[in-house]
Amino acid sequence: MHFERMAIIGVGLLGGSLGLAARRQHLVGHVVGIGHRSSTLEQAKSCGAVDSFTTDAAEGVAGADLVVLCTPVGLFGPLMEKCGPRLKAGCIVTDVGSTKAEPMAAIARHLPGECHLVGGHPLAGSDARGIESANERLFSGATVFVVPSAETMAGPIERVERLWQAVGARTRRIDPQSHDQLLARTSHLPHMVAALLVASLEPGDEPAVGKGLLDTTRIASGDPPMWRDIFLTNRAGTLAALDSFERLARQFREALESGDAESIEAVLRLAKRRRDSLLNR
Amino acid sequence: MHFERMAIIGVGLLGGSLGLAARRQHLVGHVVGIGHRSSTLEQAKSCGAVDSFTTDAAEGVAGADLVVLCTPVGLFGPLMEKCGPRLKAGCIVTDVGSTKAEPMAAIARHLPGECHLVGGHPLAGSDARGIESANERLFSGATVFVVPSAETMAGPIERVERLWQAVGARTRRIDPQSHDQLLARTSHLPHMVAALLVASLEPGDEPAVGKGLLDTTRIASGDPPMWRDIFLTNRAGTLAALDSFERLARQFREALESGDAESIEAVLRLAKRRRDSLLNR
Repeated sequence: MHFERMAIIGVGLLGGSLGLAARRQHLVGHVVGIGHRSSTLEQAKSCGAVDSFTTDAAEGVAGADLVVLCTPVGLFGPLMEKCGPRLKAGCIVTDVGSTKAEPMAAIARHLPGECHLVGGHPLAGSDARGIESANERLFSGATVFVVPSAETMAGPIERVERLWQAVGARTRRIDPQSHDQLLARTSHLPHMVAALLVASLEPGDEPAVGKGLLDTTRIASGDPPMWRDIFLTNRAGTLAALDSFERLARQFREALESGDAESIEAVLRLAKRRRDSLLNR
Repeated sequence: MHFERMAIIGVGLLGGSLGLAARRQHLVGHVVGIGHRSSTLEQAKSCGAVDSFTTDAAEGVAGADLVVLCTPVGLFGPLMEKCGPRLKAGCIVTDVGSTKAEPMAAIARHLPGECHLVGGHPLAGSDARGIESANERLFSGATVFVVPSAETMAGPIERVERLWQAVGARTRRIDPQSHDQLLARTSHLPHMVAALLVASLEPGDEPAVGKGLLDTTRIASGDPPMWRDIFLTNRAGTLAALDSFERLARQFREALESGDAESIEAVLRLAKRRRDSLLNR
């Protein structure tokens, strides 16, 4: 048994899947689901993702030795303000947010001294959302970033890592700032670029849209409020990634303006090599 | 019968598929395949894409009433320089190139006065390439841009349109400059952006690469020399599309720098709405 009592705040795709996997594999003694809609919580219970539930977050976390925040990252601060005083000594707080430095700071502000913060970020999202899409195999083979702050002790980090490993994930330890810069390059900037590409289409362009553009802009269909919060909680990382991208765009523009065939082909070859190598990881 | 004798220069995915479809449906009397590798031409013959073949382009086009250029656009000029003098009066020259204004000008420079130029661009490429991927259904349901120059007469335009329609395509008539600006937005800029996104990754970023980035950058695996030529033959269009994109990027950057949640969400909502609508065309 990894934890006696796990409280999951936000029982959607990620929270529900974690509850399912942990309960089915007897990794936890009791899972309490916390949310603001009873109907969702009922559904989480009937599908086996939680043992009990409550809409009162402070009540729900009481007695838990693991609290997992699975809400939008913008809610971490207000939630912890409410729940912090009710956390039991030794409790580990973790999360599944896509950005880490700011959301973890928001958690830390309200964390009692005798509790532990270990950030987390499973790369296991999908277009599907909600408890109805939850499944116990969601994390199988997925990468989960385990993100200690500078203050986090080794014991809690390892306990969180072992839980993710037990549900099939490969864990990678990384600090919050490095995580956010890394994800800005691999996720946040690509999302921004996809959104701008589709936003810069003109009315009537549709007949010329082929499979290439559809693939390139698929992620632009993501949930706007969720992505707004990702950008706002990773401004430094996203801006740094945008700087790099714009530097390359300037070089490409200059090559294009001067008709420099060699430089253009060199960039395309580099991109193709890197893209092809991503498939052979 | 649409044409007595069709010469296809470059018998790969597009040229081979056109030959297959036209022969199977008896749209043409005789198809001659032209290329520089006998083995490819042999294969085109044995799969039914051509009736005969030659590696001598000038010889191949002699007597044809339709010549279809299916080589990289960079070869149109040199090829037409060689073949122009051998074209018979009334011959229609068309092509399947991804860019139109410059490649069509290269054709026109060597076109005898009594011949007709009607550019073409089927949106029917794929990751697959070569005669081994050719199939007679490739153009079924596909959009084909039919691109007359200012001088092209109505008769030849309609004959080319009817041929494409006969192999299942929906044709759209557009002038070369509008075509190139349109495709810059829907294809060339997205390709450039995908290439730059993957080029701006750093060594060691791979574990953080998820399905989103893979989709967004899939087209960056395209053939570098082919795309180099697309960019070089559509510099004006690509630069104009890049201008629009960079204008939006500047606005997004400013919103991000000032923490303007509303503007960020507005862009994301616009992008999502447009992207979702592309699926319901």
